[in-house]
Amino acid sequence: MIGRLNHVAIAVPDLKAAAATYRDALGAKVSAPQELPEHGVTVCFVNLPNTKIELLEPLGKASPVAKFMQDNASGGIHHVCYEVDDIIAARDRLLAQGARIIGDGTPKIGAHGLPVLFLHPKDFCGTLVELEQRSA
Amino acid sequence: MIGRLNHVAIAVPDLKAAAATYRDALGAKVSAPQELPEHGVTVCFVNLPNTKIELLEPLGKASPVAKFMQDNASGGIHHVCYEVDDIIAARDRLLAQGARIIGDGTPKIGAHGLPVLFLHPKDFCGTLVELEQRSA
Repeated sequence: MIGRLNHVAIAVPDLKAAAATYRDALGAKVSAPQELPEHGVTVCFVNLPNTKIELLEPLGKASPVAKFMQDNASGGIHHVCYEVDDIIAARDRLLAQGARIIGDGTPKIGAHGLPVLFLHPKDFCGTLVELEQRSA
Repeated sequence: MIGRLNHVAIAVPDLKAAAATYRDALGAKVSAPQELPEHGVTVCFVNLPNTKIELLEPLGKASPVAKFMQDNASGGIHHVCYEVDDIIAARDRLLAQGARIIGDGTPKIGAHGLPVLFLHPKDFCGTLVELEQRSA
C-alpha cells in the first residue's frame, strides 16, 4: 500500500537557523519558508536527490506542533510521510484493521496541495505517520 | 554535501510486531531481521521505492538504543541517515565548522557494510544524524 517516502518532518524552534544548518553545515538545497496557517506551521523543504526533509516551526498559538516543541525544545523528528495511490482506500483499509486516524477521517490539503491524513502514533511504532495522496 | 536520504531509523520495543505493522497494515516489503551485535541492535528494512525505513530493536545490555527506549517505550523515530560521497572529507568539514561527531571520529562499519558516523543532535536541530559513505 505505502509507496515513496514523501518527506521526513523535523520540528525546530528556529526555522531560519535550521535552514542555515542544512544549507551551510550539511551543504543541502533549502527552499524559502512557506507559511501554512491552516496547519499551524511554517515550513522549508530540504531537497535531497530522492526525497525531502520538511523543516517546520510552529505558527500561531494553536499550532499542533506546540506541544511537541514543549517536550523537545531543541527540535526533533516529528513525523514521516508516505505516499499512497488512493488516500480514501488507504484510510478505509486502515480503519477496517482497527487503526486510528487523527481527526474526523476527512483528508486535509497538505503542503503540496494534495490530500493528507495523519495516523495515530500508538498504532504505528510510536511514530506519527502522514499519508499523502500521490500526485497524478 | 549530503546526498540521498539512505534511511530513517525507527526504534521499536518489538521488532516482530513492528515488521508485521509495516507488512500487514501498511502493505510494505520488509526484510528478515539481521542482528548487528557491534551496533547493539537487530534491524529489519522496510523497502520503499525511493529509500528505506530501518526498524531497530535493542540487542544486548549495552545497546546504544536502550536509553531511547526507556524514554520512548512505544518506539519512536531514532535517526536519519544521509549519504555522503566521502565520509572523511565530510567529517573534517563538519569538525572545522565546530560540529560534534559522536565517539572518537573514526567511522564504524554500518548495516550496509559501509563506513558511518553519527553527528551530535544538539548541532543538528535536535535530531541524531548518521552519515554513510555512498557506495561506489
